[in-house]
Amino acid sequence: MTHYTYQTKQVHLLRPETGDDLLGAIESFAESRNIGTAWLSYLGAVKRASLRYYDQTRREYVDYVIDQPLEVLTGTGNVSKLEGRPFVHTHAVFSDEDGKAFGGHVNHGCEVWALEVKIEEYEGAPPVRLPHDETGLNLWT
Amino acid sequence: MTHYTYQTKQVHLLRPETGDDLLGAIESFAESRNIGTAWLSYLGAVKRASLRYYDQTRREYVDYVIDQPLEVLTGTGNVSKLEGRPFVHTHAVFSDEDGKAFGGHVNHGCEVWALEVKIEEYEGAPPVRLPHDETGLNLWT
Amino acid sequence: MTHYTYQTKQVHLLRPETGDDLLGAIESFAESRNIGTAWLSYLGAVKRASLRYYDQTRREYVDYVIDQPLEVLTGTGNVSKLEGRPFVHTHAVFSDEDGKAFGGHVNHGCEVWALEVKIEEYEGAPPVRLPHDETGLNLWT
Repeated sequence: MTHYTYQTKQVHLLRPETGDDLLGAIESFAESRNIGTAWLSYLGAVKRASLRYYDQTRREYVDYVIDQPLEVLTGTGNVSKLEGRPFVHTHAVFSDEDGKAFGGHVNHGCEVWALEVKIEEYEGAPPVRLPHDETGLNLWT
Repeated sequence: MTHYTYQTKQVHLLRPETGDDLLGAIESFAESRNIGTAWLSYLGAVKRASLRYYDQTRREYVDYVIDQPLEVLTGTGNVSKLEGRPFVHTHAVFSDEDGKAFGGHVNHGCEVWALEVKIEEYEGAPPVRLPHDETGLNLWT
Repeated sequence: MTHYTYQTKQVHLLRPETGDDLLGAIESFAESRNIGTAWLSYLGAVKRASLRYYDQTRREYVDYVIDQPLEVLTGTGNVSKLEGRPFVHTHAVFSDEDGKAFGGHVNHGCEVWALEVKIEEYEGAPPVRLPHDETGLNLWT
């Protein structure tokens, strides 16, 4: 098992603007502050969701859009390093007006209605993502 | 983007009682300790769920109840200040006996079966919620 | 309300191996390091999910398996003490290729495809789980 140990440096609470790209807003924040290692948690609502599903057999992402207003029930993710830059990996759960839940790997194109994000920033050398043969993904090594 | 930075003051683990109101129990705890800034995470089960969906077009909440026992798969939320008092904002994901997932903005009326809550309390001036024209919500400013 | 207060000792980021048992990997880590009190958050994907639903009327768990590749949208849980040993309690939300969400109490048998786990370890005497008459569960006392 790959294992890293950290101390918390600080906790950021963010509110991206209405209309912002959910993933892009978190990426911009992480890049502008050079955050190498962090854990994410968020909630709110989007005007539309843009998601990915990783096909484990074909080893490729399948992208899809849910083009309607949705609550963001919860988002979870992290920041680590890929090719020397901060990389944001996050999954989220959404719900519609009937309370039905959806979700997936968050892609660019989730348009923020209102969002509250916690970014827990850690001190120390970040996990590094490298190609992982068994899955075809870039995983911590 | 609105942005606040904090250090963690302490972490509370709570177990509300069977029969407690989920949201009310967290609100009471935050008020009794005057917790101004915190992030929430929880899991457990409820006897019934009482939820809201924010209609982004009409700019109003639509309330509904799922009147059956449900697992609480995860709850996410925060404490900040609204009109000078601690205000709890939380969304949760639930599942039924077939594993089907539901969720929404947590309203009063979710009756606790068993619940385990983490409240991460931060030091420093809390985010303040003020009316936000673009969405009709009270958002951090 | 049962209430404990902690300071964070350290934060572990883990990546269990492809093929590992999700719950077993977290249990092994907690046991090997004698982690008494912790909060968990994770995301990733599994080859299959093995879940439980607690029937509040019959007071027994009903186990079921979703035997297909699924995204792990989010997992939440904790480590506390049961009969003197670290005990892991965790619920998770999953999604299929259409983004449909499922979930439940995580049982042994969730086979990891790729997983990223945060374990927030706390300092101080752990919560202790004891039989709770009203629910038939082992709850913090």
